Amino acid sequence: MALVVQKYGGSSLESAERIRKVAERIVATKKAGNEVVVVCSAMGDTTDDLLDLAHEVNPVPPARELDMLLTAGERISNALVAMAIESFGAHAQSFTGSQAGVLTTEKHGNAKIVDVTPFRIREALDKGNICIVAGFQGVNKESKDVTTLGRGGSDTTAVALAAALGADVCEIYSDVDGVYTADPRIVHNAKKLDKLCFEEMLELAASGSKILVLRSVEYARATGVPMRVRSSYSNDPGTLVTGTMEEIPVEEAVLTGVATDTSEAKISVLGIPDTPGNASAIFRAIADAEINIDTILQNISSLEDGRTDITFTCPRADGPRALEVLKKIRLEQGWENVLYDDQIGKVSLVGAGMKSHPGVTAEFCEALRDGGINIELISTSEIRITVIIREDDVEAAARAIHEKFELGGDEEAVVYAGTGR
Amino acid sequence: MALVVQKYGGSSLESAERIRKVAERIVATKKAGNEVVVVCSAMGDTTDDLLDLAHEVNPVPPARELDMLLTAGERISNALVAMAIESFGAHAQSFTGSQAGVLTTEKHGNAKIVDVTPFRIREALDKGNICIVAGFQGVNKESKDVTTLGRGGSDTTAVALAAALGADVCEIYSDVDGVYTADPRIVHNAKKLDKLCFEEMLELAASGSKILVLRSVEYARATGVPMRVRSSYSNDPGTLVTGTMEEIPVEEAVLTGVATDTSEAKISVLGIPDTPGNASAIFRAIADAEINIDTILQNISSLEDGRTDITFTCPRADGPRALEVLKKIRLEQGWENVLYDDQIGKVSLVGAGMKSHPGVTAEFCEALRDGGINIELISTSEIRITVIIREDDVEAAARAIHEKFELGGDEEAVVYAGTGR
Repeated sequence: MALVVQKYGGSSLESAERIRKVAERIVATKKAGNEVVVVCSAMGDTTDDLLDLAHEVNPVPPARELDMLLTAGERISNALVAMAIESFGAHAQSFTGSQAGVLTTEKHGNAKIVDVTPFRIREALDKGNICIVAGFQGVNKESKDVTTLGRGGSDTTAVALAAALGADVCEIYSDVDGVYTADPRIVHNAKKLDKLCFEEMLELAASGSKILVLRSVEYARATGVPMRVRSSYSNDPGTLVTGTMEEIPVEEAVLTGVATDTSEAKISVLGIPDTPGNASAIFRAIADAEINIDTILQNISSLEDGRTDITFTCPRADGPRALEVLKKIRLEQGWENVLYDDQIGKVSLVGAGMKSHPGVTAEFCEALRDGGINIELISTSEIRITVIIREDDVEAAARAIHEKFELGGDEEAVVYAGTGR
Repeated sequence: MALVVQKYGGSSLESAERIRKVAERIVATKKAGNEVVVVCSAMGDTTDDLLDLAHEVNPVPPARELDMLLTAGERISNALVAMAIESFGAHAQSFTGSQAGVLTTEKHGNAKIVDVTPFRIREALDKGNICIVAGFQGVNKESKDVTTLGRGGSDTTAVALAAALGADVCEIYSDVDGVYTADPRIVHNAKKLDKLCFEEMLELAASGSKILVLRSVEYARATGVPMRVRSSYSNDPGTLVTGTMEEIPVEEAVLTGVATDTSEAKISVLGIPDTPGNASAIFRAIADAEINIDTILQNISSLEDGRTDITFTCPRADGPRALEVLKKIRLEQGWENVLYDDQIGKVSLVGAGMKSHPGVTAEFCEALRDGGINIELISTSEIRITVIIREDDVEAAARAIHEKFELGGDEEAVVYAGTGR
């Protein structure tokens, strides 16, 4: 008997009809002889609707109350899924994050899970029940207040519960039937992957793939819980995410896929006096403004004037604020200029196979050159190459790289929409 | 410094705008030097919308999950009211029923409060905070599951909290500005009462007045918490419900008002062999079907054949079921016939003044006679006279009685709508 944790996103639960479909699948999993724990997100757009209401009554809603408000969304979907399961003749019991033992840090709105003590879940499973747990929420240890885990929190709840319960697999359901070698809306012969390792999935998620939330993959890697990405609309087995890079035999290591990201902006600080501490002044200012930095590149100093340039990317939504912060300290720091550019895009190639194939970077750049695409910035990790290019070039670049490394399949991929949290 | 508990119904919280109005009133109460605890119902039609969803996924939703679902409504309104209060510069903290220490019986869907241990509320009040408590919900002591208190549960939450905290008053806000001598939609010069005693309010509520839920008044009487019925749309002081009948000096005891009720049906069991145990067979059958009986009347036995008739009323919604239950046992019990009639209405006159005025019943019947209204059934308590008449005669009867006893004011009453739960 296997223990399966399943997580369903908002789009899988957007109507009573969809909820009944999901319930049918859960009951089938149970009837196949498994113990089943289900984590649900809020239905469809519930979270956004509640946020709108909050801002109507208070433009700056207090974080504690916002958490109390938003967690109502998961309570609703949770209870409905449990009801639907009962109508298919199986027994279900729903639990809030607090009842399921999801303990978090104090910080409202973006709490971190510190411990999961799923006594009540274990008890209910032993009685033969299906357990439905509200995702995205927990309770903080000190003040016993309800907290939320931030965007993607339900995925993290699912993985954390799976780890605490020693589950055999954590299935993440959305409207996408797996991890593809590229976004099928951009690359039409993108191929669904059967399997990839945690590091590859992490690099893809960090490079713009929306299919799994970075935090949940990090949690799964740390605890060794296999994840399976599946669609609640089909019976496709989806994509298995498991194992570490080290476990992949060299001859089996391949290139996984291409990820694209057009949600970032580029900021360049020019003419920085090349003395120790100058770079840190930039990143301290940005960190104090609570802005996340993605790619960073520092050019070598110019020999003539001993000055250097630093370029980095950050979420486009935070771009203007980052620019403002840096312009404020430009003069006192002696920087020549600060430039802002949000017409950029990021294309990445990811794969454990890169380690054993030293020619990949060269081929990657040749593919872009042959497509007439200018590279503005390159950054690499052990299993990833990322370039920053013009936003308008992103789709052509993804296609060129995908083709160069022969990642595609013979068939046209199914085009999908975005996923819930 | 007084401790004030305020309860706001769904119609007072139906939009972000109304929530801000309510918050303003709460903050004003706090700034006037009071400690304030607020109990909120779910916004507008939220509860009904959630019920609809539940029945879409499962025509017979399990009670535990239904409670988990419905309590989300109060969490939402609660958090929004707390946010709105913060935007007016005061400090608010919202609590679920469980966090507020509302402990209930195990029964889902219609749990009873068994204890209130408001430690966290007291602590938050001591810090100078306004406390917002989700109405209609609690947690059962044994299984630690979320329960709901049934219709009118939020009023009961408010009174129970007021009692546990030793509050000076429990204000019940809706869209009605007090208790009237009659329904102003029927009797146009109905007068708002400044004050009445618990027993009078209980009789009015039991006789069809929708303004306060019977259970909450019973709880208030048992614990001695003064209640004040007020409108969230005006600054009218409303109606105070306090004290017992015994405390009213005879010379001050008056007739309180007229209540009407057209939600009941009448069932007559005819030709019952007049032997011990025959009446109990009827009421056992009805009780086993979980149908509430209101008025009961047994005629004296006919001398000729030693048989009797019993007539009772019950909610119209349960009428057909009650009829079915009785018809099933008619033959074995030897009853001649079972008749059903749902074109009836109930008109009651209530008031402590009745005790010291023996002529009231006579005058009451005369008023109906002069109006050409036929009485089908009379039942009385110490401070109430109730008649069952044709449904079509109810409004005329209410007006006739109201006028006969000169209960009206000089001005036209404001017409109001129904109240939330």
